Amino acid sequence: MAKKKSAIRRPKAETPKGFRDYFGEQVAVRRDMLAAIAEVYELFGFEPLETPAVETVEALGKYLPDTERPNEGVFAWEEDDGKWLALRYDLTAPLARVAAQYRFDLPSPYRRYAMGPVWRNEKPGPGRFRQFYQCDADTVGSSATGADAEMCAVTASVLEAIGIGRGRYLLRLNNRKILDGVLETAGLAEADEGNEDYRQRTTVLRAIDKLDRVGADGVRQLLQDGREDDSGDFTKGAGLSSGQAELIMAFVGARQKDNAATCSELRRAVAGSPKGTAGIEELLSILDILSGQGIGESRLAVDPSVVRGLGYYTGPVFEAELVANLDEELNSAARIGSVAGGGRYDGLVRRFTGQEVPATGVSIGVDRLSAVLAARASAAGVQSERGPVLITVMDRECMSGYQAMADEIRRLGIRAEVYLGNASSFGRQLKYADKRRSPAAVIEGTQERERGIVQIKDLIAGARVAKTATHAQWKSRPSQFEVERGQLAFAIKRLLDDTRR
Amino acid sequence: MAKKKSAIRRPKAETPKGFRDYFGEQVAVRRDMLAAIAEVYELFGFEPLETPAVETVEALGKYLPDTERPNEGVFAWEEDDGKWLALRYDLTAPLARVAAQYRFDLPSPYRRYAMGPVWRNEKPGPGRFRQFYQCDADTVGSSATGADAEMCAVTASVLEAIGIGRGRYLLRLNNRKILDGVLETAGLAEADEGNEDYRQRTTVLRAIDKLDRVGADGVRQLLQDGREDDSGDFTKGAGLSSGQAELIMAFVGARQKDNAATCSELRRAVAGSPKGTAGIEELLSILDILSGQGIGESRLAVDPSVVRGLGYYTGPVFEAELVANLDEELNSAARIGSVAGGGRYDGLVRRFTGQEVPATGVSIGVDRLSAVLAARASAAGVQSERGPVLITVMDRECMSGYQAMADEIRRLGIRAEVYLGNASSFGRQLKYADKRRSPAAVIEGTQERERGIVQIKDLIAGARVAKTATHAQWKSRPSQFEVERGQLAFAIKRLLDDTRR
Repeated sequence: MAKKKSAIRRPKAETPKGFRDYFGEQVAVRRDMLAAIAEVYELFGFEPLETPAVETVEALGKYLPDTERPNEGVFAWEEDDGKWLALRYDLTAPLARVAAQYRFDLPSPYRRYAMGPVWRNEKPGPGRFRQFYQCDADTVGSSATGADAEMCAVTASVLEAIGIGRGRYLLRLNNRKILDGVLETAGLAEADEGNEDYRQRTTVLRAIDKLDRVGADGVRQLLQDGREDDSGDFTKGAGLSSGQAELIMAFVGARQKDNAATCSELRRAVAGSPKGTAGIEELLSILDILSGQGIGESRLAVDPSVVRGLGYYTGPVFEAELVANLDEELNSAARIGSVAGGGRYDGLVRRFTGQEVPATGVSIGVDRLSAVLAARASAAGVQSERGPVLITVMDRECMSGYQAMADEIRRLGIRAEVYLGNASSFGRQLKYADKRRSPAAVIEGTQERERGIVQIKDLIAGARVAKTATHAQWKSRPSQFEVERGQLAFAIKRLLDDTRR
Repeated sequence: MAKKKSAIRRPKAETPKGFRDYFGEQVAVRRDMLAAIAEVYELFGFEPLETPAVETVEALGKYLPDTERPNEGVFAWEEDDGKWLALRYDLTAPLARVAAQYRFDLPSPYRRYAMGPVWRNEKPGPGRFRQFYQCDADTVGSSATGADAEMCAVTASVLEAIGIGRGRYLLRLNNRKILDGVLETAGLAEADEGNEDYRQRTTVLRAIDKLDRVGADGVRQLLQDGREDDSGDFTKGAGLSSGQAELIMAFVGARQKDNAATCSELRRAVAGSPKGTAGIEELLSILDILSGQGIGESRLAVDPSVVRGLGYYTGPVFEAELVANLDEELNSAARIGSVAGGGRYDGLVRRFTGQEVPATGVSIGVDRLSAVLAARASAAGVQSERGPVLITVMDRECMSGYQAMADEIRRLGIRAEVYLGNASSFGRQLKYADKRRSPAAVIEGTQERERGIVQIKDLIAGARVAKTATHAQWKSRPSQFEVERGQLAFAIKRLLDDTRR
């Protein structure tokens, strides 16, 4: 019988490649962060929306960021009826679907936030995951620059709410229309989705978006014939002339010492193109609104190098990045870069209804921010949360009494549990308490029961004493003491209150 | 151009069949409920775990509840490398994978809770959804009945924490081992997964599980030759003889006036079978532990008709159901039935490691409980949450000033937003405020600005006055009043505080 079983091939216990498991505090940190973000979004008047993980491939359409083939990069499968379903790759495509589907019922503008995992069917690699969280706020049905300004304002409020204070982040703002004006000036045609010109524009956007990674010369190459990277991989370029490329590079590098100067410089770069000029007016309006809320130069810079790779943006775009002193604090050589971003996309809902519905939004980089907060906490020496008080098991027949102890302690709001493993070794129970970071262990054997007392082992003091305390200190706060059975829960509470102080 | 576009077939904006969109308060109710449940789970010493939505089909195995073909009923797709991935169908299979994968790092016992959506590839129908939430707590690595008792205790605490008070729920407890004893007595062989006997046992379990829906005679038919339902569909039976079926029916109906009497009756039913007798001893131990925490007959009944359909349970099983007076309160003819359940499953981890790892857990029926709470709140006339204060737009050039007002109000922790739609019609703005359930609207036109004041329109009082107030009341609390611009935020706060009182 046993032989027969061992012949069966066992499944491998492994997380699928590109996916992650989150344990304990990792889950709690993200949960608390999402709760803080939700609170800010709600303060700004956004309502929660939760759509399913699954959408029809038809509804998702071809808007997958930075790919051109429909459905490339999504997890999709065919249904029995021949229809295809897929996991959502972001929260914007489902929003466009909802805005179209419920357009006669929803308030207009429709202001919603959403948070949850999204999935990308990409080759997994270091730092590239196939499931990650997004946390977006969007306003659908407003063409006002006030809506765009608000996206910047809510981003600033979110960052501050989760502990990224002023001076530690910068909002970088641009407008796709200005780039359009520059491209017009450079002789590139306006382009509709799907044709050759559109692909060229997309390639141009993607090239600019890589400025941080490949530098100005790299971008120049990508705008023209293409670029070979260090590994020898060749990326095809946009095929612009060197004159065209220089016009674009001048635009990209147009950031000046302050926003007014940058806007003047941009006005020159668009050379009177009506679209480009309109884009600059929009920026000025956004700057004006934000300055009314006290968001000025120190937190907000007009930066023409911000384009956002996604093809669907049509107006103002922005990114929030963490600034250098925070990086230093983390003692990390790597730039953290963008932790949030968004912009205006006026074309997404039209796919469904044929009517253009203006929309603008922001997406917070939840995983990146969680990592930043965790690294900061760890660098600052913040202790992770304590585990539950452990009721050890000396007599297995007394389980009912041990469980009653845990119950009493929990009634005071303190985490507690009875040791449920093999109780034959007391050492193993204390090891378990250690692994769970228990602040205290409770001990009741026959002797204690007969005397009507319990022993409390102070595991925090115990660990500290072992390391640092003098003998006098050790005597003044013994790491094990006894209390009357009836006083157990209150004694535990007193002990933990003392420890916190 | 326009013509060409309208010729393009537009995608349909629809939620995929069997999936749902959740709006506003629906999201908030579930979120708050999950937070309350998490708090109780943590109090009991469980740690959060979040695994990805996606698992390898190999790791999910054939444990899909109530199906026999591997992977039937899951959403699965093939990867480029020929491997198959699938969406998790519950939170237990991923836990078994984690317990095996990290077995040398995790504390033992490993106590975790998990919450999130799971997916079933089933034919959608009324009340049958293909994505729904689960919220589980499990202890892996403990064979102690204390671990099983705790699952009942934590379920009771969870129900009370979310507002299902004592007397409104009942925990119904049984033990698979007792059923095994009865089957032994009835001459049915112990069965290993995969063979014909195993399938027969599964059919028996499923038949008993249908007692609520098909009644005792229906179960009798399903135990023997099979049953035709009202629609004419025939379900094949387990093929037992009528004598065998009666033995099982006697067991299923063995519940007596109290738990002690039921246990005595069960002892008769297992007729000295060692496994059955062990099962009864376990029940007695669980009853003893729970009674030490004050959980007695009024909340806990031994009920042999509880079997839980899932093949993988091996010991104590239980369900929590809402009792009649709550149903009545909801004025609903339909029984709500089970809202949580679980039990011991000692075989799941063995699939990966070959070693038997005892485990026990509970799963809370989140969607069902959310619906119950929402129905209760609505029956009790609880008003849904108010929306944001609306700053109306009288002069579009003054957007910066309006946004500053929203900003000031938000600083007092009050939700606020500027109207961002087409501001040309004031009526449309008030209609929007109504749809958003705004408690107040702020109005500042040229006149007000010149005088340094703003108008506040009290939309709650306005609505109330329109319905019920006398003229005197109306005069004492006018639904529109003016305040100095600098006093806006505090005036709003005072108004809302008054309204709450």
